Amino acid sequence: MATPDIIFYSAKGSPFSQRVEIAFQEAKADITKYSIDLRDKPEWYASRVNSTGMLPVVVYGSPRSDPEHPSPESAKIAESHILLEFIADLYLDSGLLPKDPVERARVRLFIDAAVTKLTAPTSAFFHGGSPDGFIAALMEIQELLPPTANFAVGDHFTIADAAIAPFLARWELRLRNDVGKFEEGTGLRVYEELFQSERFARLQKYYASISNRESFKNSFDPEYILAMDTGRLGRH
Amino acid sequence: MATPDIIFYSAKGSPFSQRVEIAFQEAKADITKYSIDLRDKPEWYASRVNSTGMLPVVVYGSPRSDPEHPSPESAKIAESHILLEFIADLYLDSGLLPKDPVERARVRLFIDAAVTKLTAPTSAFFHGGSPDGFIAALMEIQELLPPTANFAVGDHFTIADAAIAPFLARWELRLRNDVGKFEEGTGLRVYEELFQSERFARLQKYYASISNRESFKNSFDPEYILAMDTGRLGRH
Ligand SMILES: N[C@@H](CCC(=O)N[C@@H](CS)C(=O)NCC(=O)O)C(=O)O
Ligand SMILES: N[C@@H](CCC(=O)N[C@@H](CS)C(=O)NCC(=O)O)C(=O)O
Repeated sequence: MATPDIIFYSAKGSPFSQRVEIAFQEAKADITKYSIDLRDKPEWYASRVNSTGMLPVVVYGSPRSDPEHPSPESAKIAESHILLEFIADLYLDSGLLPKDPVERARVRLFIDAAVTKLTAPTSAFFHGGSPDGFIAALMEIQELLPPTANFAVGDHFTIADAAIAPFLARWELRLRNDVGKFEEGTGLRVYEELFQSERFARLQKYYASISNRESFKNSFDPEYILAMDTGRLGRH
Repeated sequence: MATPDIIFYSAKGSPFSQRVEIAFQEAKADITKYSIDLRDKPEWYASRVNSTGMLPVVVYGSPRSDPEHPSPESAKIAESHILLEFIADLYLDSGLLPKDPVERARVRLFIDAAVTKLTAPTSAFFHGGSPDGFIAALMEIQELLPPTANFAVGDHFTIADAAIAPFLARWELRLRNDVGKFEEGTGLRVYEELFQSERFARLQKYYASISNRESFKNSFDPEYILAMDTGRLGRH
């Protein structure tokens, strides 16, 4: 086994970790991935990798070391959106960020705008109640998408897509399986509205583009996530 | 007068605009700056430049045009932190972002961490009461600074410095002049604690580095800001 100089600590099932995994896959990066189960986090993680205990983290730089004993001298970088930029910087030819400064600004604006809109839909599954706010938030997200292009900021996959895809996919999965604190049947009804009705055609086309992407498919484990979410959110 | 292809719309006295102005000056960029008085905003601004009415904005790209009639085809970019990255992208040799990916990540982490810590001190001047929270927030900001380097992320000026300098400078100015909704004399007392006592030596050294920088001095008009702040915050 080759000793790595990039170690990616990824939380199983975590959307923030998936963002980073998508980016590494798009860049065809040669890395070591170390999966951590959040329900059984190893003790050394906080002391040797990230004192806050949060994931994802990327450990970068020589001297090379094994994931359970990363070199104290290596850089340890947290925060998924910082890591997306980091990976785009490391792999300049990945296309993860366009070369044109205006296009780069568009990618960053999309991420900022989308991220502020992710919070409400994410917490809706934990709180239930009326799904109207959820649907309205998804309409706002749809309106951020370009009318015809395949991806968030044009016809090429960028870190903007990596940032949002893990969240859209979790919502789709939960709704389709009626998982979450909404009343029984509500998830399925919202699923039909968002993923089958004409009103959300642009979002559907976008979701098809990202969910068919190899980097997405290789980093998404629907069975694992569904089991985890059914456990903590309940199925009605 | 040369017709520009970069127009920078700047709000007089605004810290967000100053961030961008500092970055352009560091890059020795050849731009047209158009100052807007927020108390008397021209009507065309929202329709021709930014529908939200917010500043700063950078208009970029041919065809060249005069600031009051920017070309509809040009890119119009808002949000100061996006603009800092944009300027660093346009002027790769400015040093505004280091070339090393790990260093770039450090700059971005500093900006993120600092930005979340700017809100409480900024609003303290508007709400008054005990200054303890203010002092504690400044201690947290001091702790983000490297122990010995001159700038936020090392010995070179970066967009991390451009992002925080306008805020530190406004706080220093207000405290030193006892402006703000604190009780009379409180500002001056906090000024002495932050800008003269040993406990804040690192912050003081940092503040000296940035406030002596030409790009800072050329973009900061203390008389204008003091008059504006005395008007809206009061002097006790
Ligand atoms: N702002 C962080 C958020 C990361 C985050 O929330 N990670 C969660 C997993 S999804 C975590 O590590 N939680 C710590 C824990 O559950 O012990 C990022 O974007 O990377
Ligand atoms: N998030 C924005 C904030 C900019 C901002 O708050 N701008 C204020 C001036 S400091 C503004 O334009 N306000 C509109 C107005 O007062 O009419 C940025 O970072 O650029």
